[in-house]
Amino acid sequence: MTDAPAPPHGYTPDKARYLARLRRIEGQARGIHRMVEEDTYCIDVLTQISAITRALEGVAVGLLEDHLRHCVVDAARAGGDEAEEKLQEAVAAISRLVRS
Amino acid sequence: MTDAPAPPHGYTPDKARYLARLRRIEGQARGIHRMVEEDTYCIDVLTQISAITRALEGVAVGLLEDHLRHCVVDAARAGGDEAEEKLQEAVAAISRLVRS
Amino acid sequence: MTDAPAPPHGYTPDKARYLARLRRIEGQARGIHRMVEEDTYCIDVLTQISAITRALEGVAVGLLEDHLRHCVVDAARAGGDEAEEKLQEAVAAISRLVRS
Amino acid sequence: MTDAPAPPHGYTPDKARYLARLRRIEGQARGIHRMVEEDTYCIDVLTQISAITRALEGVAVGLLEDHLRHCVVDAARAGGDEAEEKLQEAVAAISRLVRS
Repeated sequence: MTDAPAPPHGYTPDKARYLARLRRIEGQARGIHRMVEEDTYCIDVLTQISAITRALEGVAVGLLEDHLRHCVVDAARAGGDEAEEKLQEAVAAISRLVRS
Repeated sequence: MTDAPAPPHGYTPDKARYLARLRRIEGQARGIHRMVEEDTYCIDVLTQISAITRALEGVAVGLLEDHLRHCVVDAARAGGDEAEEKLQEAVAAISRLVRS
Repeated sequence: MTDAPAPPHGYTPDKARYLARLRRIEGQARGIHRMVEEDTYCIDVLTQISAITRALEGVAVGLLEDHLRHCVVDAARAGGDEAEEKLQEAVAAISRLVRS
Repeated sequence: MTDAPAPPHGYTPDKARYLARLRRIEGQARGIHRMVEEDTYCIDVLTQISAITRALEGVAVGLLEDHLRHCVVDAARAGGDEAEEKLQEAVAAISRLVRS
């Protein structure tokens, strides 16, 4: 009996949930476009921009957690240099997120 | 000869440009969804999330500038209480943006 | 009876409160230094860094509000070009804050 | 010959550098206090608040990297549940930083 192939990425087990969240974010982006098209008051548009930004941050923190738990920790347990490479990629991603 | 009606919002003169930027942001959101659908490496997805977040911030700062220049400054010149109301709305929006 | 001279800046009427908040922030910075000196667990140090960052953001949003209310609105009421200059300075400051 | 005790935290090998950076941040905080005391123009004060915020972010990302490299990766290599606990602490800290 062959083992199921290891999921390609840390987020793969939650892929459906991520896709649903990203579909909602796409809808929020379309909604903001429509608000401007319909001359909605700028403050209300800004409120929606803050909302979609927070939704994106939530997805980003989730992907980081999955990357750390699977890519970094698995590589650490396997030994070798890959863990350090995966870790540096994570730190660069954290730095971009903290500064965006 | 009647004057052209005052543009409803500060961003109205730049509406076409905002709509083009927001259309691109919608495309970026769709692109991120497709990356996850196609099992793209999580760090590359995170890079795109930072990019769309920065694009959203750019639109937000632009809308704030337009709101301040038109809604707040025009209301200040017209006198009365409206300027204070518009200003407080701007400050609340700035606070949300700084903390998102 | 001569009028009291106009306060130099928007924040001047609240100067004592700002100084107290900034004194606390200085104390927070010293506290973080002491935590590292005493080999405190890194996650606890990170918690304090988030706290001091939020405190700084609070002061920044307050100073922006004062700048908008006094420097920008007063300049708008006085007419002339100064309002536009003050407004552009505010927008540049908002942009730096949103991206830091 | 007894082994040197393992450094208590990930940041311990760089402790002197962190202390120097935090000392500078404390000085920046004191400088901002002095700017307000001396009625410095609000926009210049805001510029310094953005600067100290970026300095704090730099220290935070460094501490996170050390925590991931030592606390999380070492715990992963050692096996057992500690890695998961250290990882969740890191993710909570990342989430706070991204949202502050």
